Amino acid sequence: MFYDFPQDFKQFKPAPGFLVHVVSGQRLMLSHVTLQPNSEAPLHSHAEEQMGIMLEGEFAMTIGDETRLLKKGDMYLVPSNTVHGGITHAEEVVVLDAFSPPREAYK
Amino acid sequence: MFYDFPQDFKQFKPAPGFLVHVVSGQRLMLSHVTLQPNSEAPLHSHAEEQMGIMLEGEFAMTIGDETRLLKKGDMYLVPSNTVHGGITHAEEVVVLDAFSPPREAYK
Repeated sequence: MFYDFPQDFKQFKPAPGFLVHVVSGQRLMLSHVTLQPNSEAPLHSHAEEQMGIMLEGEFAMTIGDETRLLKKGDMYLVPSNTVHGGITHAEEVVVLDAFSPPREAYK
Repeated sequence: MFYDFPQDFKQFKPAPGFLVHVVSGQRLMLSHVTLQPNSEAPLHSHAEEQMGIMLEGEFAMTIGDETRLLKKGDMYLVPSNTVHGGITHAEEVVVLDAFSPPREAYK
């Protein structure tokens, strides 16, 4: 199926400056995340595996004990139960994440 | 973990004009697909569930009995064992797909 954005998505604001839109299949969830400039995705972890790609902006992301400044096109893996988060700088950041199984807290 | 592109990815050319780079976790695989102008992703199906986003270009994509002209930012779901494919026009197309479980034929 084809999705219309944002009307086909469920919307969340999990933290200040942090807007999430999700859609799910049976095994996968896509999470389209917009982070305002100078905001933070607080460190957290979850059982669901996560992989993602940077769509816009620059994001200083931490996964486990590694931090990297991500730019458009950069991709990453967050293994199950691995602490991760990040901060934005002067630009808005847009990220697309996939979760498997669909992230329970976002259903 | 953070990936360096393309060196951390396994590369495939599944059809003419069709270049795929994949990385996998335990439950997820990301597939970064580049399609040359005026080329075709032939109709096919697989058991693995697939969700994706258009990163660049325009792609006339068919999923089951529906066809839509996708543009940058558009997202879709290909349920398990659902026929899908598409054609490109004058521009190169770049797509990011997620598969769960990791697509057996691409491992």
